[in-house]
Amino acid sequence: MPAEDELELTAVLQALADPLRLEIVRELAAAGDERSCGLFATQVAPSTRSYHFKTLRDAGVTRTRIAGTRRMVSLRRDELDRRFPGLVAAVLDDRR
Amino acid sequence: MPAEDELELTAVLQALADPLRLEIVRELAAAGDERSCGLFATQVAPSTRSYHFKTLRDAGVTRTRIAGTRRMVSLRRDELDRRFPGLVAAVLDDRR
Repeated sequence: MPAEDELELTAVLQALADPLRLEIVRELAAAGDERSCGLFATQVAPSTRSYHFKTLRDAGVTRTRIAGTRRMVSLRRDELDRRFPGLVAAVLDDRR
Repeated sequence: MPAEDELELTAVLQALADPLRLEIVRELAAAGDERSCGLFATQVAPSTRSYHFKTLRDAGVTRTRIAGTRRMVSLRRDELDRRFPGLVAAVLDDRR
């Protein structure tokens, strides 16, 4: 997971550029807290879900914490807001 | 080229998620007007440049106009701002 000052805009945009990952980010933003990975995107195969969570984590969009047998994921909102002011808000604001 | 109400956030994010395309978008935003495609990214092969301009155009980020033997490109800033308020500003604001 990249540190705050290593977050790259193109990597973050790439991570957000997928409907399922965008849905995960929106749910995390709405929750405002960490959630179990298993609660998300239950319509896709576990391997697909793992791939998407890894993409978000590697880009620095989310943080994952292991809690026993569960993986808890949270949005790195404060860090993203400091590095790319307005970006997450603009993405969440989309009203399609 | 998609109409304003057909612009898709994920497609726009995907188009912006590349260093060269981001550079083109920044130059277009700074120019505030259309520019000849040939003025951009002169360090890459013409076929590569064409690919990137096509990606931007297909996602609806830019508009291309043929003027004689030249292709003039411009940023669809107003349309993007209406559809995804704050997104282009956030991307241009990046201070890495």
